[in-house]
Amino acid sequence: MALLILAPGKDVSSWVEGIREGDKNIEVRVWPEIGNEEEIDVVIVWNHPEGSLKKFRNLKLISSMGAGIDHILKDKQLPENVSITRIVGEALTISMSRYIIMAVLHYQRKFSKYLQDKEAHVWDQAADPEKEIQIGILGLGVLGMDVAKKLRCLEFHVSGYSNSRKTVKGIKSYAGEGELEEFLGSINVLVCLLPLTSKTKNFLNIQLFKKLQRGTYLVNVARGNHLVEEDLIDAIEKGYLSGAFLDVYRQEPLPKAHVYWDHPQIMMTPHIASITNTESAIPQIIENYNRLRKGQDLINEVDMEKEY
Amino acid sequence: MALLILAPGKDVSSWVEGIREGDKNIEVRVWPEIGNEEEIDVVIVWNHPEGSLKKFRNLKLISSMGAGIDHILKDKQLPENVSITRIVGEALTISMSRYIIMAVLHYQRKFSKYLQDKEAHVWDQAADPEKEIQIGILGLGVLGMDVAKKLRCLEFHVSGYSNSRKTVKGIKSYAGEGELEEFLGSINVLVCLLPLTSKTKNFLNIQLFKKLQRGTYLVNVARGNHLVEEDLIDAIEKGYLSGAFLDVYRQEPLPKAHVYWDHPQIMMTPHIASITNTESAIPQIIENYNRLRKGQDLINEVDMEKEY
Repeated sequence: MALLILAPGKDVSSWVEGIREGDKNIEVRVWPEIGNEEEIDVVIVWNHPEGSLKKFRNLKLISSMGAGIDHILKDKQLPENVSITRIVGEALTISMSRYIIMAVLHYQRKFSKYLQDKEAHVWDQAADPEKEIQIGILGLGVLGMDVAKKLRCLEFHVSGYSNSRKTVKGIKSYAGEGELEEFLGSINVLVCLLPLTSKTKNFLNIQLFKKLQRGTYLVNVARGNHLVEEDLIDAIEKGYLSGAFLDVYRQEPLPKAHVYWDHPQIMMTPHIASITNTESAIPQIIENYNRLRKGQDLINEVDMEKEY
Repeated sequence: MALLILAPGKDVSSWVEGIREGDKNIEVRVWPEIGNEEEIDVVIVWNHPEGSLKKFRNLKLISSMGAGIDHILKDKQLPENVSITRIVGEALTISMSRYIIMAVLHYQRKFSKYLQDKEAHVWDQAADPEKEIQIGILGLGVLGMDVAKKLRCLEFHVSGYSNSRKTVKGIKSYAGEGELEEFLGSINVLVCLLPLTSKTKNFLNIQLFKKLQRGTYLVNVARGNHLVEEDLIDAIEKGYLSGAFLDVYRQEPLPKAHVYWDHPQIMMTPHIASITNTESAIPQIIENYNRLRKGQDLINEVDMEKEY
């Protein structure tokens, strides 16, 4: 029985060390040095090559190295009847919420204007230095609930949309397809925190943007594939959106010639909103390794029906 | 008995309307149309000309149009034995806290780097996309306490320094001159929210910067005269400070030739962190006008000993 780390191109030394230090009984192997493949029953993956998991005949658990599992599910040759778990981390949540709040405040306090004014040596106290905003969180999971509460703490109006209705003090919760339109019409800052599933791919498209209040601002910190990039550019041109703050892209690294780089209404960061912290992730990996041994329920297991 | 608004160069129409609508019994006059000066017993001021208040022989109350009163106290011919009040506003507090959080996150999440990278079409996920920060709030009054609590809500380490010790859950409170050095040595982000008094003028100088951890980041949202501007430039050059986020300046508007405009380590906004909201200020003015009539204690009265 052994645990394999399969993350091509990623420096996994801190994972190897962390798991070995955390539990000396776990035999850790690192791809491509897999040894006897029949001994592998747990794999820890990040962007594994398509089809590379099917050869592990005794595989029982695939764990994502992060919060998302879309990189696992896109493998069409994924072995069946193997549990999938993801990382749910306090550090990851704190980090994501701070990033979203930075993006929201950047927009609400018109910081782009002041950056331009600085460059032009212009002192202009705009008539109204703040925007009136109503923030809508698309996806009220662990991350969505955390940022919703923190935005409330900063005394913003916040609502959320999710599959099932949530109860959070001070936050209006919209649920199900029937309430999507009402949710979209009630906000002017949209934060996407959806999981990427077959249902949510391309969710952020021109039809959706048209249902928002004119000039809504978009923050996408979920996955690049949620957003139809041409539709974003089109929606900004037509005024449905006033701009966007993006951390994720359909292709990463973002191609050198991409239109985003020079777009004045688009703020960008290179997928750094929330980085998995090994200190918080490794204990979860070890916990599940041992639960598997003892036949116990796993923590942070993915519901394959929901795909998250 | 009449109330005079004395704010040269400021559009005070919303103040006049608001006070008249709020209390029809108040006779509102607007400088320079002062009428019979002996009838004026309340003045609402913002940057009044030096000596312009002494001619009102029956003056009983000078109210600032904002949170600060340094613009009043700097008048060397200020009439004595006249009460001074200031505006303490919820809207003003919310606004200030959001601004400070924007500034802190901008620094903590290295947003300046990503702005530069965007301009250069560079995709660089820095090894460590977040800074470890300990935030120190200089001045734990209404504003300082509010932002300290909100930064705690975002799960930051926060401490504060003030004349008298404060009790706020999760926030270490340093008090008095004896503890200043320890406070300064324990933080790496310094937020100045001091009132401007004869004691705090030039408080942010090179001697103070040397007591901070090397590379501390400065946020000044209080008054320009707290900060010795040449010392800031010097401290950045020498590495005592890594940069600053400023909203206030010794001379406003900031002169066209000022070194700040092109300084890459200095982020700037034109004194917009917190704008007095007339909706919240006017009821305070009316309240004090009527308390004065009835001989009651005023609200938000300035302690002339402390100068705030």
